[in-house]
Amino acid sequence: MQNMLEALQWRYATKKFDPSKKLTDAQLGLLEEALRLSPSSLGLQPWKFIVVSDPAIRAQLRKAAWDQPQITDASHLFVLAVKKNVDAKAVDDFVNSTAKIRKVGPETLSRLKEMLMGSITSRTPDQAREWGSRQVYIALGILLATAASEGIDACPMEGFDPKKFDEILGLEALGVESRVLAAVGFRASDDPAAQSVKSRFAKDEVIIER
Amino acid sequence: MQNMLEALQWRYATKKFDPSKKLTDAQLGLLEEALRLSPSSLGLQPWKFIVVSDPAIRAQLRKAAWDQPQITDASHLFVLAVKKNVDAKAVDDFVNSTAKIRKVGPETLSRLKEMLMGSITSRTPDQAREWGSRQVYIALGILLATAASEGIDACPMEGFDPKKFDEILGLEALGVESRVLAAVGFRASDDPAAQSVKSRFAKDEVIIER
Repeated sequence: MQNMLEALQWRYATKKFDPSKKLTDAQLGLLEEALRLSPSSLGLQPWKFIVVSDPAIRAQLRKAAWDQPQITDASHLFVLAVKKNVDAKAVDDFVNSTAKIRKVGPETLSRLKEMLMGSITSRTPDQAREWGSRQVYIALGILLATAASEGIDACPMEGFDPKKFDEILGLEALGVESRVLAAVGFRASDDPAAQSVKSRFAKDEVIIER
Repeated sequence: MQNMLEALQWRYATKKFDPSKKLTDAQLGLLEEALRLSPSSLGLQPWKFIVVSDPAIRAQLRKAAWDQPQITDASHLFVLAVKKNVDAKAVDDFVNSTAKIRKVGPETLSRLKEMLMGSITSRTPDQAREWGSRQVYIALGILLATAASEGIDACPMEGFDPKKFDEILGLEALGVESRVLAAVGFRASDDPAAQSVKSRFAKDEVIIER
């Protein structure tokens, strides 16, 4: 594991993966666990993460993603998906799960539940989904940071057809919609994108002191 | 620096900070640099990060954030803000900055510019701002992961009045809107929230294999 700033300097949106290099089970498990532990507003975790390894499915997905080779050539494809409805049921699921983890009855969490319900019902379904989508992007940030810190390459991707992805992956039945992708694996030694100098605004253009 | 999974287990949304414990300059610089290096779609970095240390300003902000003590008691308050307009000018700024970094004339990046313009102009201003907001949440994820990996506590916060924050911080003039906060510093030894068992859905509820 490398220092986080070194890791963030080292990482880049990998365009050409080495298809022969696969994540070990330990590396895959670590990335999955990082996603599972990702923070979210109110702790509600309005998401599911689909880890696609099947080559036939990935060939189909590639067609729904502008034929981008990362989809099939990376070791694994992570599809980050948001719950379609962040509603009373989502709150119930979370409160029941929390009660189980903390080994208490759900009724002892009634104040938490009330607070969550108040927050959730203040949003329209569209607003709730957009709020949920933002949370998914926190998880994306955690995934990218974790991968880089472990020397694992990744390419975050928004360029795909979410409806087709949902269909191919059967996400309707899971109550989620695909939102953003991360192809994860190891860079090909001749990826031209690896040679580009990282382009970031200068510190004084993005960090403002008050 | 700790292993990322240990760090993600260790971190929690800190409710009570120790006001006497401050980030060192090195720690502050590291968090700022992690934000600056955060990935974003197309590399456009549609954001600014406001680092608030002034106690008088933070007292005002606290009033616009449900009087939450983290706002004033944490070592620093990070306000993550999105560009109001992700438009042709934002693309120009990025292309010019990239040309400078790569020591080439902006005209050599005309294909990149064309691609970015195509992508940007396909969105309505509202869609562009929402897309930008999602990117800001990647930076939030990167910030939280980096802080945790360095043993620095943080509390991500959505509960505040963005319009009032923008006014107090003078963000209108910078062309950005506050989107999400992270209070950053060190937990008080008696923060009750530190005692709560972390509540996350079980692996098979969030990780789906295909």
